[in-house]
Amino acid sequence: MPLIVQKFGGTSVADAGRIENVAGIISDTYAKGNNVVVVVSAQGDTTDDLIAKAEEINPEASRREMDMLMAAGEQISASLMAMALQRRGVPAVSMLGWQAGVETDSNYSNARIKRIHTERIERELSGNRVVIVAGFQGINKYDDITTLGRGGSDTSAVALAASLHADLCQIYTDVDGVYTADPRICPDAVKLDEITYDEMLELAALGANVLHHRSVELAKKYNVDLEVISSLTKVPGTKVKETVKMEKMLVRGVTRDNDTARIALVGVPDEPGIAFKIFSLIASKKIEVDIILQSIGRDGTKDISFTVHCGDLKTALQLLEENKDRINAKSVTYDDNISKVSIVGAGMATNSGIAAKMFEAMYSAGINIKMINTSEIKVSVLIDRADAEAAVRAVHEAFFPKD
Amino acid sequence: MPLIVQKFGGTSVADAGRIENVAGIISDTYAKGNNVVVVVSAQGDTTDDLIAKAEEINPEASRREMDMLMAAGEQISASLMAMALQRRGVPAVSMLGWQAGVETDSNYSNARIKRIHTERIERELSGNRVVIVAGFQGINKYDDITTLGRGGSDTSAVALAASLHADLCQIYTDVDGVYTADPRICPDAVKLDEITYDEMLELAALGANVLHHRSVELAKKYNVDLEVISSLTKVPGTKVKETVKMEKMLVRGVTRDNDTARIALVGVPDEPGIAFKIFSLIASKKIEVDIILQSIGRDGTKDISFTVHCGDLKTALQLLEENKDRINAKSVTYDDNISKVSIVGAGMATNSGIAAKMFEAMYSAGINIKMINTSEIKVSVLIDRADAEAAVRAVHEAFFPKD
Repeated sequence: MPLIVQKFGGTSVADAGRIENVAGIISDTYAKGNNVVVVVSAQGDTTDDLIAKAEEINPEASRREMDMLMAAGEQISASLMAMALQRRGVPAVSMLGWQAGVETDSNYSNARIKRIHTERIERELSGNRVVIVAGFQGINKYDDITTLGRGGSDTSAVALAASLHADLCQIYTDVDGVYTADPRICPDAVKLDEITYDEMLELAALGANVLHHRSVELAKKYNVDLEVISSLTKVPGTKVKETVKMEKMLVRGVTRDNDTARIALVGVPDEPGIAFKIFSLIASKKIEVDIILQSIGRDGTKDISFTVHCGDLKTALQLLEENKDRINAKSVTYDDNISKVSIVGAGMATNSGIAAKMFEAMYSAGINIKMINTSEIKVSVLIDRADAEAAVRAVHEAFFPKD
Repeated sequence: MPLIVQKFGGTSVADAGRIENVAGIISDTYAKGNNVVVVVSAQGDTTDDLIAKAEEINPEASRREMDMLMAAGEQISASLMAMALQRRGVPAVSMLGWQAGVETDSNYSNARIKRIHTERIERELSGNRVVIVAGFQGINKYDDITTLGRGGSDTSAVALAASLHADLCQIYTDVDGVYTADPRICPDAVKLDEITYDEMLELAALGANVLHHRSVELAKKYNVDLEVISSLTKVPGTKVKETVKMEKMLVRGVTRDNDTARIALVGVPDEPGIAFKIFSLIASKKIEVDIILQSIGRDGTKDISFTVHCGDLKTALQLLEENKDRINAKSVTYDDNISKVSIVGAGMATNSGIAAKMFEAMYSAGINIKMINTSEIKVSVLIDRADAEAAVRAVHEAFFPKD
């Protein structure tokens, strides 16, 4: 009997009506003769409400206690979902992370799944029951509850699919798949039928908020077939897998990311160790650096520029100011009014014309490029934020021309 | 080092301010050099909110799933309480029923504690931490979450105190002890310093809503010293224990219970097996019967009357109607406009004047008695509900005269 893992996010289970809707999807899948394991997130605002309660009492509560608190959210939605299925006559049983055998490390609030002991789930499945697992949570070796951090329920679903050797892992969300661009910016955006793990990873990293990075990495590692699909429409979603059918479409999508700020250190000494000094400093505050560019040395100095998340800009600048004697730059400038626009596609590396075509589209639209960065399967440019949406439309039009 | 178990109910932890207040009580106890185990109920309306969510989705949800849902309430309050203590610099760790080793039978929603595996709690205590246990919950042999039914958190606290051989189990509530009568009815009511388990059991059964019956039974069985105490005032509460100091006070309290209705079967055949027929019928619907009185047979018939909870009256009458051919009563009457007023005291059995003194007080107040029932340590009378408060005051004045 085929086994399908289905994951439903917080908006999909936000109230009784949504839960009913999801119960309909699950019972249809079950009625077609599948074994079904369901992973649910906490209802709508539950997580935020719980965080607010904790903040009021102790803004510096231990992460162990925060995890204990947060885990209640998925417990509530899991039991309600089981009740909704029972009402439809579908035998269902809810399980918490520890009951589902989800063993994690002890990094509270951002734990990693170490392994899943699937005996209990398998027993319930062989009893023909639908198993509803509370997402986002597990237990560590001390029998304490842990949570998995951002995108945790996606990770729970993929890890369960891998451990149970599921035939498919469906991630239900409020969009009906992965598009060639954000349809709100680019009305001509097209839904992709299929995409590779690597492409999806680049898209996730570049601001397409569909699947969380960690869950895609895990799916790639264990070769879990994913499908991103809407819980509101009945149309097929986008499959994410190792390889996809050969297609002419070399570029998979165009993304925009506004959460980026550029820092430039102008005229630092052109001597060994300078990059090490700068970036070990930045790393000491756990600041993520994205693009790094270094100019060719000239007159004994060089320029180094890099991008960080907007929320880290202030800390990074302060850090550079405090250490200016060590770094010795002529000046430090920044620009937080920029966006990163990227194209992603696995065929790109062997197709030299792709980047040029992107630059041409932007030139035609009169958009100035401030910084360029490329990898095997993507090309990113930094531009003024005011130009970002026009840039996405121009680039999308170049690669996905209207018929 | 002395070990104290402290239990706080839903109103005591209803919001951040109340939690702060309770954290103060706990940290004072800890600062005095005690080991402290705390049991908390769900915050204020959480339990009702969760029930409402379930009702909306499936009014006939399985009890297993209801328990899974309800248990989230105590999980939230336990973790918040640990956070409040951490803020005060008191090392604290929250634990769910299963982590605290609370093993129950599988009677979901009304489970009984079978034993408590205290290793984990003892380890945390020896690490000098305050342990906060989510009340009302445990796990069964299938590793499923169970809840303990009404008064469950009191039961959790007493069971933990018994298993850990605690020196004292304090039940914090919104009244500051056990009174000789309800102070709202009887302004002269006096707080008792001490009371025996048996007296407390009678008081609990007779409408004094201070401690739940089951928790007092458990305390008696394992000889756990209880104290009923207020979380809002700083005054000592009432100690509940095996024996109390000899005192002149033979009567411990006067109670009133409005949740009672009388059914009378007039003129049933005076033949063997008739009581069996009636009460096995009533028991088949799980209806609790309190007082039963049977008249002496005369002219081949007798009268049988008994009391039930008001909520069960309709079902009981319907049952008797459906089976009237088997029971063969001349008529069935009922009265649901009555109250039960009782006096309780361990010294009563050897003091024949007590009941007479009660009846005299009621006669002086012009109150008619409809039914009388006595046990070793109590005398109960049924009277018109309109007379109930006057009766409590009159009887209280007789046994506890103003100076």
